[in-house]
Amino acid sequence: MKPRSEHPDTERVDLADIAPELLPYLGQAAYLQLEAFQGLAGVVRAVPGLDAKEELSAAAGLTLGKFQGLVAEIRRHDAQPAEVMRPFTASIDRLQQLTTGSDWQETLLGVHVTTGLLDDFFIRLAAGLPKDVGPRAAQLLGSDAGSESIGRILAAELAADPALGSRLAMWGRRLVGDTLLVARSALHDTGNESSDQQRVEPVFTDVIAAHTRRMDALGLTA
Amino acid sequence: MKPRSEHPDTERVDLADIAPELLPYLGQAAYLQLEAFQGLAGVVRAVPGLDAKEELSAAAGLTLGKFQGLVAEIRRHDAQPAEVMRPFTASIDRLQQLTTGSDWQETLLGVHVTTGLLDDFFIRLAAGLPKDVGPRAAQLLGSDAGSESIGRILAAELAADPALGSRLAMWGRRLVGDTLLVARSALHDTGNESSDQQRVEPVFTDVIAAHTRRMDALGLTA
Repeated sequence: MKPRSEHPDTERVDLADIAPELLPYLGQAAYLQLEAFQGLAGVVRAVPGLDAKEELSAAAGLTLGKFQGLVAEIRRHDAQPAEVMRPFTASIDRLQQLTTGSDWQETLLGVHVTTGLLDDFFIRLAAGLPKDVGPRAAQLLGSDAGSESIGRILAAELAADPALGSRLAMWGRRLVGDTLLVARSALHDTGNESSDQQRVEPVFTDVIAAHTRRMDALGLTA
Repeated sequence: MKPRSEHPDTERVDLADIAPELLPYLGQAAYLQLEAFQGLAGVVRAVPGLDAKEELSAAAGLTLGKFQGLVAEIRRHDAQPAEVMRPFTASIDRLQQLTTGSDWQETLLGVHVTTGLLDDFFIRLAAGLPKDVGPRAAQLLGSDAGSESIGRILAAELAADPALGSRLAMWGRRLVGDTLLVARSALHDTGNESSDQQRVEPVFTDVIAAHTRRMDALGLTA
């Protein structure tokens, strides 16, 4: 344990103290990217504009690249990606169902919100991975996956339809709790669950603050 | 016109005689790849096995790469991809609807059959494009897009379910006519339609022969 600061609320939590098990970390992170890829590809079909189709397909491709990078990492550790991802499919499939909205705008915001929160969280969690993997995983998850395009497309929709804002704001709020539940489940394998859950609270605060800024950027109340 | 061979049925047709207009060629070829990408991404969601999901997502990514290469080619000619693709969306969306089967096995065969036929056809048509574009377009369209994985996944399904073979064979046959209609529409802009349609017949014969070999490889009667 590191010495605690005198002022805990100004302390930047050091997640290096929490060591997630490597393969479950990679398996969950990978399947999340695969799910995000599918979500984006589904929106490519649903969105009417050809420019938006091109931009969103590029975002889907970048997300697929993250998945493939994580899968390569799993193979580098002599494990089978399918085996390593399997324990996480049920909870992530459930999240995907919750994230799928009644129209493509909701679904796209769903991918934007959940991917934003979870990538942020997994990047921080990477600090506790072995030194030969952690930085690479963090860099991979932090790499661009078209969130700027997604934001721009959503902003254009919001500008064109004044009624959409309150609906999307509510939709975004609905998804935060379930997304954080999936994030929390990443700690189940650290073998030190309850103290880790406590220690990780400030990280959740940070991750939610970043989410609020993303929603703000769209003019939506988080 | 080149001199005709004494033995027309051993003659390899030279499509360099048919010069498709560059931008419509690129627009139609690009939108076909975008549609194939979406089809494959949809099957990633529907297929139950995680190994198959990984393989098919890779195929989707390679197909997306072809789309992006064609889009880059359109931009290199100072045109807007959306404008150039737009005239082809209705006919290709219709083909996509026809290609979407009642289960993922039919849909995957649909992508396999239509992409196989159309890539083949567009590769041959590329011979009539300007010399600085044609070879690059042909190479792009001829590059691997995971058809081996697709074949392997379909073969495993066929081996596991003896009743599937006759259903998929029928499904594949159903799609050939509509796919070739889309291929034929690529000749509408050559300004020399009826003679081109005639001259292109041997190409269709070749393209269909390649299709038959693909179906044979799956043990399906074309």
